[in-house]
Amino acid sequence: MDRIQLTLDEVRSLATAVFRHHGVSQRQTDAVVDTVTAAERDGCVSHGLFRVPGYIASVASGKVTPDAEPDITDLAPAVVKVDGKNGFAPLALEVGRQPLVRKAKSQGIAALAVTNSYHFAALWPETEALAEAGLVAFAFVSSRSFVAPAGGIKPLYGTNPMSFAWPRDGRPPVVFDQASSASARGEIKIHQREGIPLPDGWGIDSDGNPSNDPKAILGGAQLPFGGHKGAGIALMVELLAGALIGDVFSFEATAADNDDGGPTSGGELIIAIEPLLCVDSSGGPTQLAHAEELFAQILAQDGTRLPSDRRYAARALTPTEGIRIPASLYRELLGLAGGSAH
Amino acid sequence: MDRIQLTLDEVRSLATAVFRHHGVSQRQTDAVVDTVTAAERDGCVSHGLFRVPGYIASVASGKVTPDAEPDITDLAPAVVKVDGKNGFAPLALEVGRQPLVRKAKSQGIAALAVTNSYHFAALWPETEALAEAGLVAFAFVSSRSFVAPAGGIKPLYGTNPMSFAWPRDGRPPVVFDQASSASARGEIKIHQREGIPLPDGWGIDSDGNPSNDPKAILGGAQLPFGGHKGAGIALMVELLAGALIGDVFSFEATAADNDDGGPTSGGELIIAIEPLLCVDSSGGPTQLAHAEELFAQILAQDGTRLPSDRRYAARALTPTEGIRIPASLYRELLGLAGGSAH
Repeated sequence: MDRIQLTLDEVRSLATAVFRHHGVSQRQTDAVVDTVTAAERDGCVSHGLFRVPGYIASVASGKVTPDAEPDITDLAPAVVKVDGKNGFAPLALEVGRQPLVRKAKSQGIAALAVTNSYHFAALWPETEALAEAGLVAFAFVSSRSFVAPAGGIKPLYGTNPMSFAWPRDGRPPVVFDQASSASARGEIKIHQREGIPLPDGWGIDSDGNPSNDPKAILGGAQLPFGGHKGAGIALMVELLAGALIGDVFSFEATAADNDDGGPTSGGELIIAIEPLLCVDSSGGPTQLAHAEELFAQILAQDGTRLPSDRRYAARALTPTEGIRIPASLYRELLGLAGGSAH
Repeated sequence: MDRIQLTLDEVRSLATAVFRHHGVSQRQTDAVVDTVTAAERDGCVSHGLFRVPGYIASVASGKVTPDAEPDITDLAPAVVKVDGKNGFAPLALEVGRQPLVRKAKSQGIAALAVTNSYHFAALWPETEALAEAGLVAFAFVSSRSFVAPAGGIKPLYGTNPMSFAWPRDGRPPVVFDQASSASARGEIKIHQREGIPLPDGWGIDSDGNPSNDPKAILGGAQLPFGGHKGAGIALMVELLAGALIGDVFSFEATAADNDDGGPTSGGELIIAIEPLLCVDSSGGPTQLAHAEELFAQILAQDGTRLPSDRRYAARALTPTEGIRIPASLYRELLGLAGGSAH
């Protein structure tokens, strides 16, 4: 495939030009472009510039409010809410981050409920940022009905990712960010495009039969990872990102969406814990040093790595190697920025 | 198999007699016997009377302090700690429950760190009790090194269960309680005893090869459920129940244990959330009523059920049908109670 090499500054400039050209406010643009740029930096192609046309579609269709100003409400000593006001999630998350950090550091544990916003990114940007502030963090987001419940055959749950981050001294946090479906939706589409059968266990056709055919599964249902246990996680995510914080379930988001190709409206729950307030002064190794002993045990086995190590390895190479995107995507983005293809 | 039928009162009396005969204090006994009886009531045989000989072994070996009095410390506005003082976990959990409920109901979210205790039961008793108080609850416990990390072949993680509970109006909560391993350790031993090969994916032999032989896996390693995603959950549980709260990891608990057949020492993290403090008064359906709409969508599909429905179905039958245990276990328990076999 023909590819274009870009520096991260060029990624940022290009994405910014696209959003600004479509009337997205500078604040909304800056927050979204931060997550797009971070994804490209870390080699997470599916959440980078690839997502920009979808973001723009949701503005162009009138679904997302391009100049939304999130509204913050203090709900309890350990709970803060940010109403995204129908804008994209990254600005709502940014507005909520410092209040959440302050609450976690004073109360020991705290929650941030983000509602009424459009999430179209990975979850690790928010949990990693909290862990960089010294906190243990969880994030939960539902999406659009793609995944069958345990025992069922029709899509109900979203791919419902959850992320968890653990802070480290002098190193980037250990972070996982994983769908509760066996695969990402995008991976199925890539198999379809390339004509490759799917691995077992990814999905079922519309009659509920196991299938390796991408088209049959896209018209049937994805499966949770690990059977009923993954379905348990998916159900938990629906409840946390939906009913708990007064936002919608995936099936409701699906019904309300205009199918413009962009994100659906929904909620996100973030929980942050201050480790220093989870122990008394009775001694023992410090908590972060103790965790390093576990990480060392993992890495002492051949073939292992820590979650997020692959991202950090990509991150280390980006300043010198830049990133590469398909020339077709580059031309599309130039067009969306109001310029002309080279 | 020859079986003995018992009422729940008889279960309670028999278990109590065993613990008291071995010098376990009345408070420790009552708390442990509550979880044993609840497990029998709900048809969870592997956490019922079956566990009692293991509990007693850990007292007889001198590992567990039979009259431990848990010590409670207020660590932060939203964090409370209970030091189990080397006793069994149920009393420590009972001591921490009301302080945790009070903190969650005033702060919105709160955590209970239970340390230095011996957990040998399921997790649903603690999360279900919190959900019965109207809270959303999580629990995390590590155990003994049985499970290989992602990519590795040697046991490192425990079977590391997590539980999640959601409160319902006028009905028992929706609760899941699932190991992060593909199977419970006990299920492998049952297959071994009965000479039945294991399903694919449960474990690997000591060379790291997939195996269906119970003996090979018991000498090799169990696998997480759902590949690296289940391993992510297992890692998270290690960090939450270990380093975060100043307690041990599974590999440390394994090294410290005297292999008496009873539980290992460790920690447990519980998180509780007050739903009423996670929303403002901007309207919409109430949170619990909203969740019922999701449950109805799940149950509208053939072949589905809610997590914990099987337990509640067993619970409904127990008052009229009683429970049945193997006659050999009954005789063993009578012996442990200082009586003679019938």
